[in-house]
Amino acid sequence: MCSGDPDRPTENLEKTIGMEGFGFDGESEATGRLPVTDAIKQPFGIVHGGAFAALAESVTSRATYEAVGPESIAMGQANDTTFLRPVRGGTIEALARARHRGRTSWVWEVEMSDDDDRLCALTRMIIAVRSMERADA
Amino acid sequence: MCSGDPDRPTENLEKTIGMEGFGFDGESEATGRLPVTDAIKQPFGIVHGGAFAALAESVTSRATYEAVGPESIAMGQANDTTFLRPVRGGTIEALARARHRGRTSWVWEVEMSDDDDRLCALTRMIIAVRSMERADA
Amino acid sequence: MCSGDPDRPTENLEKTIGMEGFGFDGESEATGRLPVTDAIKQPFGIVHGGAFAALAESVTSRATYEAVGPESIAMGQANDTTFLRPVRGGTIEALARARHRGRTSWVWEVEMSDDDDRLCALTRMIIAVRSMERADA
Amino acid sequence: MCSGDPDRPTENLEKTIGMEGFGFDGESEATGRLPVTDAIKQPFGIVHGGAFAALAESVTSRATYEAVGPESIAMGQANDTTFLRPVRGGTIEALARARHRGRTSWVWEVEMSDDDDRLCALTRMIIAVRSMERADA
Repeated sequence: MCSGDPDRPTENLEKTIGMEGFGFDGESEATGRLPVTDAIKQPFGIVHGGAFAALAESVTSRATYEAVGPESIAMGQANDTTFLRPVRGGTIEALARARHRGRTSWVWEVEMSDDDDRLCALTRMIIAVRSMERADA
Repeated sequence: MCSGDPDRPTENLEKTIGMEGFGFDGESEATGRLPVTDAIKQPFGIVHGGAFAALAESVTSRATYEAVGPESIAMGQANDTTFLRPVRGGTIEALARARHRGRTSWVWEVEMSDDDDRLCALTRMIIAVRSMERADA
Repeated sequence: MCSGDPDRPTENLEKTIGMEGFGFDGESEATGRLPVTDAIKQPFGIVHGGAFAALAESVTSRATYEAVGPESIAMGQANDTTFLRPVRGGTIEALARARHRGRTSWVWEVEMSDDDDRLCALTRMIIAVRSMERADA
Repeated sequence: MCSGDPDRPTENLEKTIGMEGFGFDGESEATGRLPVTDAIKQPFGIVHGGAFAALAESVTSRATYEAVGPESIAMGQANDTTFLRPVRGGTIEALARARHRGRTSWVWEVEMSDDDDRLCALTRMIIAVRSMERADA
């Protein structure tokens, strides 16, 4: 994010879609939320599936990196999101639990809920962990 | 919101992330592309996984709806995206192929490639198809 | 095949791999287990990934059918299994929780653990629910 | 498989379910098939989803190991199988294509078809590749 680092853009997808409230307990639970605006909806007025996928991936990759960086990097490897209930307003809350914290990968399960605490989407996220010098694969 | 249809916001996630070039042959192949900008990256300067997931979902849900609507609606049910190669610039091209076109679901496979035609991400997308009057589940 | 119903084979995959102990609370939790034998391993002596996938699918499709049948049928639509820890012996216990019970689909998350209660694999299972007369898609 | 190696059982899941015809071009395409018998069906007389998942995983993990072993091992990390069409008889043919052959993971897409060459199931398979001395994670 600093001005001197050309690889750290000041814009990013989290800001673009309005993600906020990231938290991580340093162990195995992380959170984030996404206020619902038209900018994250699909044309029929419900939240776009990609917004859920992006929210889950941001929370889990940031948390993994907080745990393993800066010696290692954390990169999303697979994002499997299932949609259970359309959302039209309010705020989407993401609750992520690390189910595996291995040397080469972390696996998270993420629940995303609406303002009435109804489950709206589920993500399973595999985050690859690689040491900085071997991050090419 | 446009004045004529309160459910159709004039902003949407496709515009927010800059998706363009949607095409559909009316049968089983659809395309779209996403120019890489900082606004779709994660903090380390590579394209955010959620941007790939959103691109694939937009292309396939729009194409499915073009084929089955307006009598039926098309809603994303599951989006499974695997990331193969980080992307830092250029344009991401999505090529989607319908592998199943059933009465209640369509299944698509999507390849996303960079400017050098290298495969960067894969999505399998299940789109639920429901008649308008029974769209609640 | 039993004489009364040519579609109900007396052999099936559950018996072939030795699944046992199916239970369902009638609501949202189901269980099953798979004793580890050579017959379910891959050539290197650890349990084959397909055995986990089969166990999770059996538990969730049986439970869904118990809830929605016989007016409706329950058919596996998507099985996404992630492997966390190899298993060489003992018994694999599956605990499945229904996360969505809709009119046209149920979504389950399944945890599979070893004798030391360590998490070994996760499955997310989408079960399509269709009325008997419209089960063709 | 040799009698002297206690980790190589003479029984295994591939034999248990009757898989045959494994082939691999040494590069990026692999095949296998599964004759349909009652032993691989679910109780309603169609092939159990776990049989498709097992077939796809066997073909792709064997092929990956042929390419990277014995210096490295190949272990299934994620198996995402989507079911498109029920199968009641004949033989299931699996055609697997490697979409990514990285240092730490291979990613395959597998198509499974029936005797009439109709697509019945799709698997995306992530195979983790680890050097023998660091295979613990």
